[in-house]
Amino acid sequence: MKDFAVVGKSLPRVDAPAKVRGEALYTDDLLLPHMVYGKIKRSPHAHAVIKKIRYDKALELPGVLAVITGDDAPQAYGIVPQAPTEYALAVGKVRYAGEGVAAVAAVDEETAEEALERIEVEYEVLPAVFDPVEALERQDVVIHAKAKNNMMYEGKQEFGDVDKAMAEADFVLERSFKTSYVNHAFLEPHSALAHFEANGFLTVYSSTQIPHYLHRTLSLVLDLPMNKIRVSVPMVGGGFGGKGEVASSELCAALLAQRTGHPVKVTYERSEVFAQHKGRHPCVMTMKIGVSQDGTIQAIDFDNILDGGAYGGWGIVVLFYTAAMIHLPYQVPNARFRGRRVYTNKPTTGAMRGLGGVQPRFAMESMLEDIAKELGMSPYDLRLKNAVESGYTTKSNVYVPHSEFKKCLQTAVERSGYREKQGKLPLGKGIGLAGGYYISGTAYTLYMSYKPHSSALIRVDTEGGIILYTGATDIGQGSNTVLPMIAAEELGVRADDIHIVSGDTQLTPFDLGSFASRVTYGAGQAVRMAAQGINKQLYEVAAVELGVRADQLICREGKIYSQYEPGPVLDFMAAVAKYIDAKGPLSAMGHYSPPRKGMKGVQGANIGQSPTFGFSAQVTEVDVDLETGKVKVLKVTEAGDCGQPINPMSVEGQVEGSIVMGMGQALFEEIKVSPDGRLLNASLHDYKIPTAVDIPEIDSTIVDSYDPTAPFGAKESGEGPIQPVIPAIANAICDAIGVRFLELPITPEKILQALKEKKER
Amino acid sequence: MKDFAVVGKSLPRVDAPAKVRGEALYTDDLLLPHMVYGKIKRSPHAHAVIKKIRYDKALELPGVLAVITGDDAPQAYGIVPQAPTEYALAVGKVRYAGEGVAAVAAVDEETAEEALERIEVEYEVLPAVFDPVEALERQDVVIHAKAKNNMMYEGKQEFGDVDKAMAEADFVLERSFKTSYVNHAFLEPHSALAHFEANGFLTVYSSTQIPHYLHRTLSLVLDLPMNKIRVSVPMVGGGFGGKGEVASSELCAALLAQRTGHPVKVTYERSEVFAQHKGRHPCVMTMKIGVSQDGTIQAIDFDNILDGGAYGGWGIVVLFYTAAMIHLPYQVPNARFRGRRVYTNKPTTGAMRGLGGVQPRFAMESMLEDIAKELGMSPYDLRLKNAVESGYTTKSNVYVPHSEFKKCLQTAVERSGYREKQGKLPLGKGIGLAGGYYISGTAYTLYMSYKPHSSALIRVDTEGGIILYTGATDIGQGSNTVLPMIAAEELGVRADDIHIVSGDTQLTPFDLGSFASRVTYGAGQAVRMAAQGINKQLYEVAAVELGVRADQLICREGKIYSQYEPGPVLDFMAAVAKYIDAKGPLSAMGHYSPPRKGMKGVQGANIGQSPTFGFSAQVTEVDVDLETGKVKVLKVTEAGDCGQPINPMSVEGQVEGSIVMGMGQALFEEIKVSPDGRLLNASLHDYKIPTAVDIPEIDSTIVDSYDPTAPFGAKESGEGPIQPVIPAIANAICDAIGVRFLELPITPEKILQALKEKKER
Repeated sequence: MKDFAVVGKSLPRVDAPAKVRGEALYTDDLLLPHMVYGKIKRSPHAHAVIKKIRYDKALELPGVLAVITGDDAPQAYGIVPQAPTEYALAVGKVRYAGEGVAAVAAVDEETAEEALERIEVEYEVLPAVFDPVEALERQDVVIHAKAKNNMMYEGKQEFGDVDKAMAEADFVLERSFKTSYVNHAFLEPHSALAHFEANGFLTVYSSTQIPHYLHRTLSLVLDLPMNKIRVSVPMVGGGFGGKGEVASSELCAALLAQRTGHPVKVTYERSEVFAQHKGRHPCVMTMKIGVSQDGTIQAIDFDNILDGGAYGGWGIVVLFYTAAMIHLPYQVPNARFRGRRVYTNKPTTGAMRGLGGVQPRFAMESMLEDIAKELGMSPYDLRLKNAVESGYTTKSNVYVPHSEFKKCLQTAVERSGYREKQGKLPLGKGIGLAGGYYISGTAYTLYMSYKPHSSALIRVDTEGGIILYTGATDIGQGSNTVLPMIAAEELGVRADDIHIVSGDTQLTPFDLGSFASRVTYGAGQAVRMAAQGINKQLYEVAAVELGVRADQLICREGKIYSQYEPGPVLDFMAAVAKYIDAKGPLSAMGHYSPPRKGMKGVQGANIGQSPTFGFSAQVTEVDVDLETGKVKVLKVTEAGDCGQPINPMSVEGQVEGSIVMGMGQALFEEIKVSPDGRLLNASLHDYKIPTAVDIPEIDSTIVDSYDPTAPFGAKESGEGPIQPVIPAIANAICDAIGVRFLELPITPEKILQALKEKKER
Repeated sequence: MKDFAVVGKSLPRVDAPAKVRGEALYTDDLLLPHMVYGKIKRSPHAHAVIKKIRYDKALELPGVLAVITGDDAPQAYGIVPQAPTEYALAVGKVRYAGEGVAAVAAVDEETAEEALERIEVEYEVLPAVFDPVEALERQDVVIHAKAKNNMMYEGKQEFGDVDKAMAEADFVLERSFKTSYVNHAFLEPHSALAHFEANGFLTVYSSTQIPHYLHRTLSLVLDLPMNKIRVSVPMVGGGFGGKGEVASSELCAALLAQRTGHPVKVTYERSEVFAQHKGRHPCVMTMKIGVSQDGTIQAIDFDNILDGGAYGGWGIVVLFYTAAMIHLPYQVPNARFRGRRVYTNKPTTGAMRGLGGVQPRFAMESMLEDIAKELGMSPYDLRLKNAVESGYTTKSNVYVPHSEFKKCLQTAVERSGYREKQGKLPLGKGIGLAGGYYISGTAYTLYMSYKPHSSALIRVDTEGGIILYTGATDIGQGSNTVLPMIAAEELGVRADDIHIVSGDTQLTPFDLGSFASRVTYGAGQAVRMAAQGINKQLYEVAAVELGVRADQLICREGKIYSQYEPGPVLDFMAAVAKYIDAKGPLSAMGHYSPPRKGMKGVQGANIGQSPTFGFSAQVTEVDVDLETGKVKVLKVTEAGDCGQPINPMSVEGQVEGSIVMGMGQALFEEIKVSPDGRLLNASLHDYKIPTAVDIPEIDSTIVDSYDPTAPFGAKESGEGPIQPVIPAIANAICDAIGVRFLELPITPEKILQALKEKKER
């Protein structure tokens, strides 16, 4: 690793003390004068025409200020703006149980709730469907008129000649997998507070990952110019993709504020978080892999049916990300993909940590394990043989500037003793290996635009010090800690010398938002460029003061001096004072635009793909209780290539969080849906996520890595590490009891059933 | 007046709707998690040694978190940092009744108040003095050890040869005047909310005019680096100079927050506002004016004893401002000044609207009236003869770049019919004229510094629009309306296209604060320069797009085009989008430094003096009730030279506010002090200020004016118009009943007494 002063040194998160002391202000903590409360009336039916909504009795209730329905905001929207399918409140019909049909504003929450009960909705119940495969065939269920066979979108890709390669392969394995319907389970429910000033200016405080896209959507749905709207993000209690789309709460708060003239706050109950959902797409996947005798992958054929739930959301993006997943982290010379995203009458699925990657990774890494066994190879050797390296271009024309994936595999295997244990443990004990990768930012905005994806402003004065303004939004991932570290490294000062202002469409410069693991890499480059802009201006003044050429100056620990010869030293803040006295106030902006296909000097990047990629390998050890079927994950040995970590402590947190979240999805998380489409466990009491007692020993290593395209070499670390979790557990269970599970979650019931069947065979 | 698109068009204040609707968030409206309340224990004695403070019983009260005394913050401070005399809480002794001796933090205000009662302070009472003339002679009263004869400071100036000029003058008049002890009576009491983050970073929200000087003082008193402190100013309910110094509330809130780890709010009761005071200096003035037969002023000799109350504050500045007042708005070839600021055992006096001007103006304009009568001239002609014009340099070497004072006199006289009425009205009815001027910003900071006094940042993006960041603080004077108008005029867009962020030492760039009528002129120039910086960058891109030379482009109503030939037009925001796509984010900074003595190309400006000056003339008509002595001000005809008004509606408001405030001081405002130094009317119930029924008809005119040194020609209008108010009323009363009053306020009692004495003569 390079020699940095700030980068690479672990720092506690800047938001940690406020959170620990209960001082952090989340959206629901905000109060405004005359503020009232909004609540949403939700459909009990999974699929029904709204015949009539009567709300006179609600309006008669003292303290009720307004009632709105879908007809008050009939403009459809969607995070992918080319395919808008959603409404602030249902228009015409409801497509899932829990969908909002009306909203009220009242002086307190109790009155609002009583008002909801006084709203009478007349429904004509329609037949509904909850399984995507069934939905494709049910002619009697038409969820969206435009979507024939309930298919929202079908995508097909072929690179190379898959049929020929399969025919020529020494060994071909085909398997079908199913993944489950899981929610992000972030701690802070969605909350939005909207306030119209008398001049018509709208401010929305919201727990969102995407202030910019919320800004755009408010403009669209409320028909207001964007420069008459401000979106500001208070402290956020987790998102994981679930706050990566506009929520009904945000639009209803704004619409009710417009209607009443009062600030309106809408905070969801946990059951409403499940209704809003946008969690992971359940996938029905068939994958075929052909290899040569020496384990070289020759072809992959992948068919994926994605359960989209009722609306569009990130669906198309997720579909194509699942397609992309077969091209990496292994060299695949021939690949075919067919994907269908299908509507069902359930809360909509969307973006969730590791979007599009987790499901195909489960399939592919499970199969590579079985193929290795079939070929008599170590699964490790098979992976190492096929692993991509820096400078690789996939058959689908995605350029990988930098990869230390082999190091990840080697490190995880060596540190865990995988070679010594795999296949050699007693019955019930097993060890599994899996690899994975993820994007580190995307090449395109979701709408046509050539503007920079991130920008940053740094302003320095002798009083307030160094202020970094960035539109990037800290959703708990730690960007408000990492971005100041990048600025501090470039400026040559301490990280706590930097004051950050972030996540506000008015106070801070443009940024696309916190998704696709884009912030450290993209916003980081904008911040670094802004800091370079400060240095350029400052060093010209410092050079005169020091009698040294400006281009020879550096700053370390707040001291500016020549990097080539010992000599005079000028304090950073003294140079700032000199600059301001001589030239006026000091500021600089920076920006980041990802390389685009066909850009001069940049190797072609495929649509939707990323400027660079992070990699991870994991070895997981489990203990399967043969009596109860319960799986205890004992230890996870992880090795990740996140480039140069800016804040290793933050990377460690991301890795541990990814492992725990993936483990929940592997072993017990699943939203249960009743035969009529109601969610049966839409609470954190009934929806089981891992708790402290479930968490295994985690040995995580950041492999030596430096991506030269990245700010101080840093790539993503928040979504890559979840990719191998599920297959590593599945492979470990297979090693423990000799059973290959093809469906998630791998519950004790399924394990006992499999053991019983195995015994009977 | 020039042809402007935005400047010169009246706009309602941007903060008006929130204030009217009760939505404005003042400091006391803010709430933070775990916030507690601070209260201050105050001395009942006007002068006493603090022998001992016992607060164990206070700490024993459940809910009390901390008690502090002066010993916890022994660092003296002052707005004039060379002469610090004040403490957060009294150290060693108290110097006025109402001075803070201890402060408590408790979970609610009631508990805090109960705790105050449990604090026992043992005093050794000292003799006290309340009159400045007496204080100079009382050897037994030593208020500050360093101040011999209780004289804080004596200033002497002589320009020309006064004795010679007086000897040669055709007529010499000498008179003595006394002005009263008045408070600003702003609506919002002082309030401060301080919060320490776990990392030691301090944020203070405060109702202050001077976030920068508060920032410095917090740094000094709490011994923290400035870049670990943020001062942010919420909505302010008036200041008028009274929030132009650091208040004990601000320091106690910060100290208690540091001590308790909780956010602490301290909001004053009205009686505490009077204790904090910093209102107008009562002055004991002797003035001698020598004139030639034709009314030309030959010399002025001015002796002023200023009652400073207990501490230093703005005292030295006020003293020298009273000195400056005799040099303008009339040509005075010889002038002498002796000023003594004297400590007394009363709440400290300080800065109040028209600081240093109002008292000498009362003396001088009263005397000019009498001199005119003595010479058989119209007081109008005498003033006109001596009035200064643009380009005048005073004998004291103050350069006046621009003056339309003659136009002010002419306009007020013509519009009021002064010539026709003066001396010709029936007994009890009178008309009076007076002139005045005031500074429009100052040349120097209060501490040695060469940095710009104001700076501004403008950032433009395609989403949020145009954001103006300025450290200037809107204290109710309307700068948040006027500064966007300046930006809009320069950019060629609408004023409501500009979003302003202001008054925050972290979010906004450096500005000295709202005092000395410096904001429109100084911060206005910084804003205009920032807007010019945007235009320069934007027009380069627009020029390519339009095929026109960049230096020929202008923007009006959001359209960019060549100012010389009809042709293509580019929308401002379209140009912004082009710019950002091509070059990245768009921002520019501007700054303003006042001209300094000896600066190249700038005529010399005297220390503490201003880059330019505003002027005002007023004709006031009164009806004196001969039975009751009550004066009814019937009409004020005002004409002001504020240069080009940016927002005429705001100027009108400033003029009307000045007249009403001055009228209160002329006729009834006066803080009454008991023989032992307690304030007898320290409430808005007992301290009488004008109400709606007292307000006269006001006819105000902004004379045609354009100061070429100013941003769009604009000078001050918030402090000049109060200057003539009191003497115009006094002159009108003299015209009505033939009595010259030399002491303020001119109460019914004084009038009845004078009428009685007149009758008896």
